[in-house]
Formats: sequence, structure tokens, C-alpha cells
Amino acid sequence: MEVNDTSDRCDPDRPAHPGVFPTREAGKSDHQPAERSVDFPVSVVLPAGGTGERTGLQTPKQFCSFLGRPLISYTVQAFERVSWIQSIVVVVAKENMDLMTDIVQRFQHRKVRAVPGGSSRHRSIWNGVLALGEMEGAVIIIHDAVRPFVDEDFLYKIATAAKEHGAAGAIRPLVSTVIATTSEGYLDHSLERAKYRASEMPQGFTYDVIYQAYQRCSESDFEFGTECLHLALQYCGTNAKLIQGPPTLWKVTFKRDLAAAESIIKDALSRSACVITGGSVRAATLADALQKAVGALGTELDVIPDLKGENARYLLKEVNFIQVSVGRSCLSEVEAVLKELEAANLALLHPLVVIWVHLSDSDELSVSGRAAQPAAIMDLSSAAKLQNILLYGIQLHQSEDTECWERSVSRVAELASALIRERSLALVGQLLQA
Amino acid sequence: MEVNDTSDRCDPDRPAHPGVFPTREAGKSDHQPAERSVDFPVSVVLPAGGTGERTGLQTPKQFCSFLGRPLISYTVQAFERVSWIQSIVVVVAKENMDLMTDIVQRFQHRKVRAVPGGSSRHRSIWNGVLALGEMEGAVIIIHDAVRPFVDEDFLYKIATAAKEHGAAGAIRPLVSTVIATTSEGYLDHSLERAKYRASEMPQGFTYDVIYQAYQRCSESDFEFGTECLHLALQYCGTNAKLIQGPPTLWKVTFKRDLAAAESIIKDALSRSACVITGGSVRAATLADALQKAVGALGTELDVIPDLKGENARYLLKEVNFIQVSVGRSCLSEVEAVLKELEAANLALLHPLVVIWVHLSDSDELSVSGRAAQPAAIMDLSSAAKLQNILLYGIQLHQSEDTECWERSVSRVAELASALIRERSLALVGQLLQA
Repeated sequence: MEVNDTSDRCDPDRPAHPGVFPTREAGKSDHQPAERSVDFPVSVVLPAGGTGERTGLQTPKQFCSFLGRPLISYTVQAFERVSWIQSIVVVVAKENMDLMTDIVQRFQHRKVRAVPGGSSRHRSIWNGVLALGEMEGAVIIIHDAVRPFVDEDFLYKIATAAKEHGAAGAIRPLVSTVIATTSEGYLDHSLERAKYRASEMPQGFTYDVIYQAYQRCSESDFEFGTECLHLALQYCGTNAKLIQGPPTLWKVTFKRDLAAAESIIKDALSRSACVITGGSVRAATLADALQKAVGALGTELDVIPDLKGENARYLLKEVNFIQVSVGRSCLSEVEAVLKELEAANLALLHPLVVIWVHLSDSDELSVSGRAAQPAAIMDLSSAAKLQNILLYGIQLHQSEDTECWERSVSRVAELASALIRERSLALVGQLLQA
Repeated sequence: MEVNDTSDRCDPDRPAHPGVFPTREAGKSDHQPAERSVDFPVSVVLPAGGTGERTGLQTPKQFCSFLGRPLISYTVQAFERVSWIQSIVVVVAKENMDLMTDIVQRFQHRKVRAVPGGSSRHRSIWNGVLALGEMEGAVIIIHDAVRPFVDEDFLYKIATAAKEHGAAGAIRPLVSTVIATTSEGYLDHSLERAKYRASEMPQGFTYDVIYQAYQRCSESDFEFGTECLHLALQYCGTNAKLIQGPPTLWKVTFKRDLAAAESIIKDALSRSACVITGGSVRAATLADALQKAVGALGTELDVIPDLKGENARYLLKEVNFIQVSVGRSCLSEVEAVLKELEAANLALLHPLVVIWVHLSDSDELSVSGRAAQPAAIMDLSSAAKLQNILLYGIQLHQSEDTECWERSVSRVAELASALIRERSLALVGQLLQA
């Protein structure tokens, strides 16, 4: 069974490697696939000059923000974490050069340079290729800035096929029947679907092929053409090798695609969480119950006593933390977690979620003490928000009644799952009741 | 400027008529476009036999739920509210007949009948056409069950063009370049994009054309064909009139499209809300401030004293209610609103949102009284949830300090907008702090 087939069937929009988004160290993923040998240089040109007409939005799609980060940064990250990719040139409209430079700095992208584009797609790509400098023997991958979910597996296939055949490109089956129209707007004929494919990105070329294709092509090609594979065929006689890509290659085109992209990003960030019990037995019992209940909702929970020693690795790999506190001493524990996360500056690429679950006996807190908690957690959360850490609280009461207790646990699970999944800014600092 | 152009540019995924989803009376929309004269019978065949392979989900897409209602019901609703459409036949796989019948009953769809499909798309459509019975002079519209956002304007264009030309079909520009591949998987040539279009749905046919096309076509057409326009051309010599449709015609195909569809539905449901002040001056002042703040977030607020007399119309047209209460007497007001909504049984097609905003002086409630509120609103919300009414609470304190007050108001606005937009089941019954 082919990799593409599998991903098509199981969960077509999910990036192939689950660790892809949560990983905050570019190039080092927890779920790194087997190391690949690429014994030739590979660089990337990302045309990002689009104006986003089809989304109908003011902001071009590549600069639309998802959880506080522009789409182009996600795409750049997809390449940056691939160890065998040397450098990335992002080609943007002149008026967006400052914006792009700012994005590169803010999200600490390495390997990346922004260069100004030309008056058409081909001219922009050509500018990008020229900016790479002489790269004899290298493969140049060209990709769209608005296809952020490309994975290393597929990039590897394109790069090696390009090296072997001179050019390679991603294709997808056609979703609709393609028809030819008469000049009067009537059906002329329909194409036999099986013979045709949609040409997608990424595409790869040996440096020589892409360089010569652009050197030899006409002004009209530069102005009106869109298909690099076509230029390689026409001007270098290179028949590109076509490789079927996974549906994740899809291009953010319409406004509805923004919601789809956001949903994929949120999915990737809500696959797992870790529960910190502080070593308390009651907290551990609750954590175990949550593990089952939250697991059933699709998020895997690891239960640990603290973030020390061996468990410090969760600081690097996890983006969701649930601190269970029992009794009075409560907020101090979550404050400690926040401090560790802030100190490590780990929320650069994605907002981290911290949920404080407070388990109390109904008589443990004075009524006035209980009334002070909402204000305390709100204050704490305001400070954390500035560090891109989203803090929420959930309260539940210990109950001897089994049914009542189980209902509370499943409410906590439901609330925690929703908070982790939605990463809502509006709800930051709220103390919810389970 | 053409209608299609406009919608492409402004907000391409939004159904053309803003009232389309919030309207709970099928066929009677608040934003009804000018009455159209269609002086011939029009019926609809909706093939809904797909297995949803491409989403990678267990449930076929047409039966996936959005805010508690299956996608097919949204599509049916899109046709049902068009006054000049007589009847709708939904063709489903035999094993889904009971499910479909249940959906029709549960969501009180009229005009609709479910019939079992055949072993291929064409056989299923043919079954649907036969189920309509002899319809001399009528137009039959064929549409996909998984294209729920089709609007009356476009249906009208297709129906009238089909009547005039015998057949008509929706087209869209190609998003990707289409290429022909060699049998070895190399690029053969790329098509000139401008000459080709993607064939989409809906399509319309006079009864005679579609009937004859299916009567005359071969077993192989029945088994392997997908394009009705092609059969009309081949077997009746009818060149279909092609009409460019809006991007809203898009087909829910991949898993990511489910998120896109949900987002469009949520957008449609969060365009407006009404604020009920109970006639109190302080409540009205808060409501006015909210009107500005929530408006800036994209939801239009109407401020009314109550739901009586002239204002009872809001019960019929609105799906979001904000009850502002001042001081102690608070929950009784929101209870009254819930009763009116429940009595009218208005939450059949969409969950209604009710937000209780409680404005208190810090000293107005005893500390113990304040501690009892969360339980009271949770109880109230559990009962309302059974009626598909989602109740949430937001508390804020009156403040003399202008800056503090403005911050509170903007927090209420932010929370209310998020609650209305997300319609979260997990958060039902929570009392949030502004």
C-alpha cells in the first residue's frame, strides 16, 4: 500500500507526521521519520506575491493569521524543519518586504531570505531562483506560500525525482469533470477524467533545467504563463516526473479554506496534553480518570507528578498542560508551571494552553476565599497571555456520590478538551465549573 | 457588474442571502429576494449515496452533523425554502433509507421523499427521476447532497436556462492547471486553462431531455459515466448552457471541508443578536455600549426592551438573544425568555444562543447569594439544552471608574461574540466574568 493511499484513507488532511506542528524546535521533531540521505544541495523558492483576490479579504492569504501567526510562517516552518533543505527564498510584493522581514525576525526563522517579486508569477519565481545564486548540481523546489501542510516525505520524493529526471511535480486526481466550452458558453465536450490530473505544488527542478527554462522562455511566457513544468518541457525538453501527492498539498484559495487551515492547525495542537499532579494521591486519581475521559474525546494524556528531571522533556514537546491542584495551596502550583514555561520561552510559534483544575472539598475554602479566586486567576492569565500562554481554570468539588463524581469528571474532560481545541483568547482567565 | 463577480470579491463563501440560515420557517425568509416568476414545474433530485471515501471518515459526508444537524438537511433546506420548487427526491443507499426518513421527520422537512439508489451515480439519479413520475414540461434540477450552500438566485438561473436550452449546468474556473500524463507517469502536455472549466452542480434539464438521455444511454454509461451534461449532448443532441456559479457551490469533499462548512454555518448564525434590556435604564446604557463593541466584532445588535408586541417578531427571526439583568431579580428574566423560546419551538434547525448578562453593584448581592448563582444557571441551562437552546452567563460589576467600566464592557462584548460564534456545548451553563 502506498503512503499516499494510506493518508488518503485514514485522515487525509492531517499532516503525515503528528509532531509537525507542536514541535517548537525547527528541524528537530519528536516524530522524526527515518533520516534520509540527500547527497545534493536543495533550496526552496516560495512565491508569496499573491493578492488574495479569491478569498475576498483585505489581507493576502499568506499573511492571514492563525493563532497569532501568519500562514507564510507555517509554510516556512514546514521547510525549515527539514534538515536537508539548505535555504529558502520567499518572494513577496515590494510593498510587503518589511512585513515579511518582520515575520522572519519575530518567529526566528533561520534559513530564510525575503526578496522582492516581479510583475507576474514566473518573474517572481525567476527572481527567487536568481537570488539563490549559482547552484550547479542542486535541486530547486518551488512551492506555494499558501500550501502550508506539505510534509518531508513528499518533499523528499519530489527532490529525488527532480534530481533523477530533471523536473518533478505534484499531481492530484481531478475533483470535478473538466469541460471545454464553446465561445457562446455552451458545452463543447467533456474530458475523460482518468487521462488528466490537476497540477499542484511542490515542483522540483535541477538548477540547470529551471535556470535554462527561464533564460530561454519568451516575454509572453513570463507574463501569462503559470506552469513551470510546461517551461521545462518546452525549453529544455524535460518531461517532468509526476507524483501523486496527499490531499494535504491543497492550496488555501477561498475564504472557506482559512477555516479549514485553522482547523487543521488546531487539530495538530490538540493531539496530546500532560497532566501534572504534584504528587498528590487525590490529584493522581482524578488525573487517571481524566486520562480515560479526555482520551475518548481524541486527546492523549500523559500523567506526570511534576516537570522536573526526566519530565522536563514535556516542556519541550508538549503544548498543553493541565495542572491538578487539591485543596487550598492551589494557584501557587500553576504559577510555578507558568514560570517554567515563560522562562523557556516556548510559546514562540504556538500559544500554549495551561488549564488549572482545582479539586476542592465543598468546605475547604471559605466563601470569601472562593470569591477571590476568579480575580486571582484572571490576573495571572493576563500576564501569561503576553507570553502567548493561555491560562484557564476549572473547578470541581470532591464528591462521595459516585454518579455525581463521574459526571464532574466527564464535565472536566469535556471542558478541558474544548479549551485545548479552541485555544480561545476570549475565555482566557475564566474559572469554569465542572 | 455581475452578481457572481460581486460575491466572488466581497465574501465568496457566504451564501448570497444573509438570512438563509437563521430563517427557521422554510420558504419564508426575512431577506427574501424579489419574488421570481417560474411558470413551469420544477423538482429536484439529490443523489446522496456517496460513501465519503475522500473524507476518510466513517460517516458519509452528507450525514455528518453540523451543530446537531446532518449536512443533507442543510442542503434539503436550501431547496425547501424556494417557493417555486415543488418536490425534492433524495436518493440514498438502501442501508441509509431509515436514517434519511428519520432526518426528514426530525427536522420536519416537507416536499421531501427518500428513495433507494442504484449501484452507480447515474443509476441513482435515474431512480430519482423515475420516482418523480411523469413530469411533461417540467424542469428537473440535479444537485449534490454535499453542496449545501446553493442559493435561490443561482437555482433560478439554472432552471430558466434549462427550460430555454434543454439543459444547463454550473461551471467554475479551474483552480489548478490541468495536465495530461503519459502512461509512464510523465508530463505529456498541459491544457490551456482559459479554454476549460470545472463542471459543477446544480444542473438543470427539461424532463424530456433527462428522461430520454437515460432511456437511450448504454450500460457502460450507467456504470462508469459521471456527467449528466455529457449524456444530454450524446443522446439528445442538447448542448447545455453553462453558467458560472459562485464559489459557494463548492462540494464538501475532504475532511478539511467539514471545518469549512461548519465555519460558514456558524458565520451565518452569528451575524446578528438582540439585546433585551427589560426597560431598565442601566441595562439600556450597557446595551448601547455593547451594541458598538459587538458591532465592531462583526455581529449586529438590536436593542429592545422585551419580546412583547411588535418585538415578538424577534422570536421568529433571531437566533441569538442577550438578556441584560440589573441587580438581584436577575435569573427570572432570562427564565422568561427561555420559556418564550421553548414555547415557540424555534430551535428545530439551529441551536439558539441565550446569554444572560448580569450587571451588579459589588455590594448588591450577599457573598453567599453570589456563590449560589453558578449552580442556578447550570441547572437552567441543562433543561434548555434539551430544547436545543444554549444558555451562558456573563457577570460584570458596575464601576464608577470609566476606564475600568470600558474594559468590562469590551470583555462582555468579546465573550458574547465568542459564545455566539462558537455555540459551544461544553461551555453551556458557565457563568463567565467580564
